[in-house]
Order: sequence, then structure tokens, then C-alpha cells
Amino acid sequence: MKRTLLTAFTLGFFLVFGSPVTAQTVDSLPSWTDGKAKQSIIEFVATVTEKGSPAFMPPAERIAVFDNDGTLWAERPMYFQVLFALDRVKALAPHHPEWVDKEPFASLLKGDVKGAMADGMKSVVEIIMATHAGMTTAEFETVVSDWIATARHPTTKRPYTEMVYQPMLELLAYLRANGFKTFIVSGGGIEFMRPWSEKVYGVPPEQVIGSSIKVKFELRDGTPVLVRLPELDFYDDKEGKPVAIHQQIGRRPIAAFGNSDGDLQMLQWTTAGQGPRFALYVHHTDGEREWAYDRNASMGGLDKGLDEAQAKGWTVVDMKQDWKVIYAHERR
Amino acid sequence: MKRTLLTAFTLGFFLVFGSPVTAQTVDSLPSWTDGKAKQSIIEFVATVTEKGSPAFMPPAERIAVFDNDGTLWAERPMYFQVLFALDRVKALAPHHPEWVDKEPFASLLKGDVKGAMADGMKSVVEIIMATHAGMTTAEFETVVSDWIATARHPTTKRPYTEMVYQPMLELLAYLRANGFKTFIVSGGGIEFMRPWSEKVYGVPPEQVIGSSIKVKFELRDGTPVLVRLPELDFYDDKEGKPVAIHQQIGRRPIAAFGNSDGDLQMLQWTTAGQGPRFALYVHHTDGEREWAYDRNASMGGLDKGLDEAQAKGWTVVDMKQDWKVIYAHERR
Repeated sequence: MKRTLLTAFTLGFFLVFGSPVTAQTVDSLPSWTDGKAKQSIIEFVATVTEKGSPAFMPPAERIAVFDNDGTLWAERPMYFQVLFALDRVKALAPHHPEWVDKEPFASLLKGDVKGAMADGMKSVVEIIMATHAGMTTAEFETVVSDWIATARHPTTKRPYTEMVYQPMLELLAYLRANGFKTFIVSGGGIEFMRPWSEKVYGVPPEQVIGSSIKVKFELRDGTPVLVRLPELDFYDDKEGKPVAIHQQIGRRPIAAFGNSDGDLQMLQWTTAGQGPRFALYVHHTDGEREWAYDRNASMGGLDKGLDEAQAKGWTVVDMKQDWKVIYAHERR
Repeated sequence: MKRTLLTAFTLGFFLVFGSPVTAQTVDSLPSWTDGKAKQSIIEFVATVTEKGSPAFMPPAERIAVFDNDGTLWAERPMYFQVLFALDRVKALAPHHPEWVDKEPFASLLKGDVKGAMADGMKSVVEIIMATHAGMTTAEFETVVSDWIATARHPTTKRPYTEMVYQPMLELLAYLRANGFKTFIVSGGGIEFMRPWSEKVYGVPPEQVIGSSIKVKFELRDGTPVLVRLPELDFYDDKEGKPVAIHQQIGRRPIAAFGNSDGDLQMLQWTTAGQGPRFALYVHHTDGEREWAYDRNASMGGLDKGLDEAQAKGWTVVDMKQDWKVIYAHERR
């Protein structure tokens, strides 16, 4: 009898308030404060997943693309891949006695990072090629896996995989739970991300797109290997991002997530498609818990993108206001 | 009482014969004759999917790669994409009065395909660039979709999508039913395949890898477009196939399917991985129902690959013996 009453009451509740089994009843985004940003995400997902809705998108079309540096994990004091390269220079130095007198390596080995970077991108490219090429793809994978398992962030002293944004991990999982296929589309190296992207982000290697250097197929004593060459294959930034999305995914995403002007073209390309679209910028506003930078940043700057986001009504995440925690370890 | 007896009987049956719900109880490959080729496929799939087996592969590692021309659909009298390009030359001729005196277009427009091809690959490249570039990616997709829906094969007079091999369609579905992710890795153009690959093969655009020309991001009156440029981006054949697999999938397949020497490096790369691997060549032996060619073919030749397949014990499909039907329409 009690049970019947309860059932009748529950039924009445459902009739009045609708089915409780929606994304909203269990909070899938617990690290997000209840603001406009969180609401815009939930509304978009509800819109495209509701059967019968004119804006319904079949799961195959639910492609979501995420920048990595500054969007899924931090990018200060500099891109983590550059820090990896600096570590590699030190590790490889004994095999390169010539580096003692050769810039940018000489300054680096003396601990003078600023001096090493004197020639800007030219220095970075030289360091990247010297540390990322000249081995097989399997060898490089081992190097990356070892580094990511042991290296520590220079200021927080935490593993780099703990420098990922907890709210974004929740967002990735939330989208996947709603039938989305999540891709990473990063300016960073594709082979720098793939060894750990599945474990950390739940994004398998075949859904990681990034910059790449050329590789060459070779038979060594009858065994095929792929050798990494010191030559740029593709630079996956700015105009390159929609190009890479097109070449590697072959359909236009319906949702895009970035944090800098380097992501602007990806957000433009995504939102220019027909039907419901979603674009989100992570705005680094929290100098205390993370870093605060935007228009005038030398790296990961957000200037034109911020204007366009405001003009077009894209979601802009104010890290300080919209995220209860930045990193998972803050909750412990 | 009856029900209890039946249950006991059924349980006894299961205990003796194992679960009846296995791939083998229902024939998933009905167009394959019961020979060594079919058996090798079923054994491989059973080996990698059996939980607790030392050769078990988790679903994420079950990557299978398929060549397209000559492996999934026919490639005679010439690659279907070349026939598409020839049709495009005719369609575009009114906008190119200069083609009347300019080879290879002049010969083509007179119906002299052989004359047009006098310069070999140089002629093909000129025709491809003239017909595949100079429009947006969206425009090209429409052109391909219209053609594939209306064009007919020159000798069979059937739509090209009916020139796909029924046994290979069954194989694709069988692998997917066993947790494999199926990819196409073709020398053909990536944007020539993607508009119909999902419908015909069940392979979504993001799992289609192929040759490509460069594309460029542009804002036209504020609307972003990707424009196809007359410049080769990547040629996905021979040594290119393992390179593309690496760049786009990021992990080594455990099964590879091809039909020509152009697929050899892909099969080598696949089988050189640790653990159970499977490589299969489709050997065109049926001059009556399809075409018969191998070592000396000018296109899609299988020479070195045939030797290596025999030396390494790869599966070689004898189309005449191993396939009950080649095309679905034979069954009607």
C-alpha cells in the first residue's frame, strides 16, 4: 500500500516535472559554477540530443574538437612540449659535444632559457628538430612516455598530467556520454600527445590531431620502421586547424573549444556550419589558481578571438568565476 | 515443469557445446566458400577476441585497414576515380575552350583516352588537378555525390557502388561485429571516397585515409571556406600507406587487406607488430566474373606482394575459388 502510494506520487511528479533521467538531474559538470557558461553547454547538448527536436543531430554528426595547450591543460610558464624539448636537450647533450658552442643549445645548457630563445621561433624550431627527430617513431614514443611519467612542472612540481583542467575533463566525459566523438586539434606535436591522451583525456590516438614532422618508411634488416625526419610536415595552428580537421576528420564539427587566437579559425569553421553549433573560449582570468593573460600575451594570446566571441555570442569561460576548481588535486 | 526441463536441457547443451552465440554459429561470411582463406579469417578473429587467450586484443587495438581500389571495389578498365575525372573533363569543357588544342584534354574530348594518357602519370596528374581543384571542398563533395549517384561503369553499366565486392562487405561487417574499427587506406583521393564510404562500406569519413591535394582556409565575405588547390598534399601509396596510418591513426593495425604491390608496405608494417597479426591479399583470378591480372598488370599489379605473401604465409584470396559471388547482384 505504501508502495502504491509512492508509485502514484512518483508518477505524478514525473507527469508534472518530466522525466528525471536527464543530464541535469545528476550534475555531470560538478566543477562548474552555475553560471551562463555551464548553462550554455547543457542547453546545447540538450538541443542536439533531443529526439524529434528540429535541431537534433545524429550521433555521427556530434563531432567536438578541443585545442589542448591552455584549453585542456596549462601552458605556463611555456608550452609543456617546449619544456619537454629543453629536458631532452640536457639528456642528449653528452651525445652532442658540439652543442657547447652552438646556439641555442649553448645558452640552454648553461640554464639561460631566455638567451636560448633570443631568435624566437627559429630557436624553438632548432630545439624541436634536434630533440624530436632522428629516431624511430617507436623510440620517440618511449621517450615521451618516460618523460610524461616522471617529469614535473617547474613551479607546481606536479606531474604534467595533473596540470589538466578538471572542468574540461568533466566536459569531455559529458559530451561523450551524450554521443559525441571528442577530438583534440592542437598546435602541439601529434606524437607528443598520443602516448598519454587516452589515459588522461579518454581520447584515443586516432582522435588526436596536431602538428607533425615528416616520417619515412624504411626496412631495417627486413623489419619496417618509421623514421622521424627533421622536417615540418604540418603546422596545426590558426588556418591550419580547419584544414587538418577537414583532412583528418572529413566532416565539420558541431562544437569547438579553444583558448587563443590560434583557435579562432577552428571556431569560425565550426560555427559556420548549418544547424546548431557551439563555440567556447577558455579565458585565463585566474592569476591566483592558474595564470591570467589574454590580449597581450606572447604565447596563447586571446585578442581577436575575444572580440569575435563577444560579437557572435560564443561562450567565454571566465576561469575565476566559472570553475570551482582548476585542477583535480584542489578537491582533495 | 516443461519449462524447467527445457532449461535443464538447454543448460546441458551449453555446458557441452559452449555458448551458441558465437560468430561461427551464424555464417557471417556467406559469400565465401569454405576454404583456407575463410578459415584463416575466422581463426584470427576468434584468437584475438577470446577473453583470457594469450593472444587476446582489447577492442581499442583491433584496428583493421583496407585498401579500396581492387580490394573493396573493382579497378578495371581503370581506377574509377580516373573515370570520374574523364567525366569531369567532358562536363567542364564548355568553360575551358583552350582544352580543344591542349593535351591531354584535346585527345580526351575526341574520345581518345589512350592518346590522352600518352604521357602516363603526367597526363593523369594534369587531368586530376584540372578536375579536382579550384573549387571549395563543399562544392567538390556535391560533384562527387552527384556523380556516384548517377554514373555507370563503362562495361557492366551498373552504378559504381554496385561494383563493390560482396565478400569484402561481409568481412567489414564481420570484423566490426567483433569489435574491430575498420579504416580505408587508399591511394585514391580522400575526398573522392568520403561522400559515400559510410553508406556503401559502413566506414565513416573520419576512418577514411587516402591521397589528398592541399586545401586552403579563406574567409569569403566573412564566411570561412576551404579551397582545393592544384597541388599534391600526400600520395597514399606504397611507403606512404604506413606513414599515413601512423599520422592519422597513430597506432599499428592488427589486420591489413590489400590487392597490389602498392599495399605491400602496409601489410609489412601491420604484420611487423607484436602479437597476433593478419594480412590478406585479394588475388584477381577470375577473368569471367571480374578481371584476371597480377604480376604484369600496368595498374594494380601484384608481383612482389604475391611472393612475400607466399613466403610469409599471408592469406591470399583466390577470387575464383574463394568467393561464391563477387557482386551482390549475382545473388538476385
